Amino acid sequence: MSLLVTGTVAFDAIETPFGKTDKIIGGAATYVSLAASYFTKQVGLIAVVGDDFPQDYIDLLNQKGIDTSGLQIKSGEKSFFWSGRYFNDMNSRETLITELNVLADFDPIVPEALSAPDYLMLGNLAPVVQSTLISRLSKRPKLVVMDTMNFWMDIALDDLKKTLTMVDVLTINDEEARQLSGEYSLIKASRIIRAMGPKYLIIKKGEHGALLFHEDQVFFAPAMLLEDVFDPTGAGDTFAGGFIGYLASTDDISFENMKRAIIYGSAMASFCVEQFGTDNILNIDPNLLKARVEAFRQLSYVDFLK
Amino acid sequence: MSLLVTGTVAFDAIETPFGKTDKIIGGAATYVSLAASYFTKQVGLIAVVGDDFPQDYIDLLNQKGIDTSGLQIKSGEKSFFWSGRYFNDMNSRETLITELNVLADFDPIVPEALSAPDYLMLGNLAPVVQSTLISRLSKRPKLVVMDTMNFWMDIALDDLKKTLTMVDVLTINDEEARQLSGEYSLIKASRIIRAMGPKYLIIKKGEHGALLFHEDQVFFAPAMLLEDVFDPTGAGDTFAGGFIGYLASTDDISFENMKRAIIYGSAMASFCVEQFGTDNILNIDPNLLKARVEAFRQLSYVDFLK
Repeated sequence: MSLLVTGTVAFDAIETPFGKTDKIIGGAATYVSLAASYFTKQVGLIAVVGDDFPQDYIDLLNQKGIDTSGLQIKSGEKSFFWSGRYFNDMNSRETLITELNVLADFDPIVPEALSAPDYLMLGNLAPVVQSTLISRLSKRPKLVVMDTMNFWMDIALDDLKKTLTMVDVLTINDEEARQLSGEYSLIKASRIIRAMGPKYLIIKKGEHGALLFHEDQVFFAPAMLLEDVFDPTGAGDTFAGGFIGYLASTDDISFENMKRAIIYGSAMASFCVEQFGTDNILNIDPNLLKARVEAFRQLSYVDFLK
Repeated sequence: MSLLVTGTVAFDAIETPFGKTDKIIGGAATYVSLAASYFTKQVGLIAVVGDDFPQDYIDLLNQKGIDTSGLQIKSGEKSFFWSGRYFNDMNSRETLITELNVLADFDPIVPEALSAPDYLMLGNLAPVVQSTLISRLSKRPKLVVMDTMNFWMDIALDDLKKTLTMVDVLTINDEEARQLSGEYSLIKASRIIRAMGPKYLIIKKGEHGALLFHEDQVFFAPAMLLEDVFDPTGAGDTFAGGFIGYLASTDDISFENMKRAIIYGSAMASFCVEQFGTDNILNIDPNLLKARVEAFRQLSYVDFLK
């Protein structure tokens, strides 16, 4: 089934304890659409860049089957740029530079051919841009997944709450869930947040795995234990891309299938963090992906027949 | 099979965001032996208290089938006392008072009837006391499980390393695993620690679950999502008691059975934290325990047949 993705397409400059990069390709929608392209060949992208963005990379996205007809290229303007530094534990980071550039007045224009997606992934963006995009579609998608972050809770909470009423699944991390709900207990937080709109809530806990909440059901997905986490940038977006890509390819939004989708998303994210930027998710061997999903299944499998 | 438990039997005074207690019964060996008593009726206890320790509580342990013939009662002396305060996130705490009292010169004397246990649980104590106890047994137990903490890494690392060469399973938390190994990556840390002696390593991550390492195998057990964590005191010891109690009752130390034992230990610990002190593990309804174990199994179960 068709999947539409929005979010940032951008330059990142990253410092980790293992090294630093110059400006490399990043952005939520880049990671989401690349990850999703492993599962479905009907991925469309709505985003904006400046004319400093390399055509080679757009060609690469196209080679992955990603339709970039909704990628606006603003002549004479610069792409969104983010620079950050990760601390030793790799679970926390500080932002060094944020240059909004073309993102400052991003108007998500939807080409006719992309206006009726079956699945919609709203990558991290201003909540008002996310809701505008939903309102411009010609039909309501079967499933709308939204990612957001604490930044929008701080400066655009009303917009965020309005957008939350329009989506089915929200993905945030544990700190953000606590901030949005005002509750420390994640099970209580999940109820408060789901009362704001989304019927499903995914709480990402980084190296501690992920939780999926729906009605009275909870699923706890482990995180892969990696020798080294090289660069966590994009891990959450890659997770989201694997998650919604798997759902779109199977066209099954049952709770049971969402659990599988979370394992696929986690497997994709585990590749992402093994190298800087998008390097490690550009060419994942399908057999390696299969093996990693099986490793995830084994990781928390217990046989209670005995 | 028979299980011998050592560790502290003590008074605790606890403050949490939900309230505070006067001196209540605590201590690692108390939690371990109570939790284990749900699985096997052959539990023996080696510990020391002062004559301030209530006979009623010793009677209660006996009613649970715990053999207290190895519990030394020091006339004219006082029991070990610990007082601590938990912070709002319940994952960190500060020690307010530590009065060693009888623990200062604890000599673990083993009655003849308890000297040949099939299973041995070394609850948190000075490592030299733990190793002394092992050396006094008339045969090597089938499985020796050791718990310890950062305190001993700081002040008695050489003793700790010596004791590590004598045990099969070590249980510590993630911070302690990082301290003991000098490695942030838990998979690397687990290799370094297992090279010190224990063939199995359990890393307890509190609200994030637990990990079991053995050779090239890893198991990730989820933690139960609770409405409220009321008092984390004793959770790790209750976990250990459920773990070794289940192993002793099934007399199966395969990796597969250790995975089940971790789920049972986690279920016991989830009851422990729902009330102050030992209150909630004194009388667990077997049907409630069964239901909680099933809830754990469901929590991370994914069906990949599809």
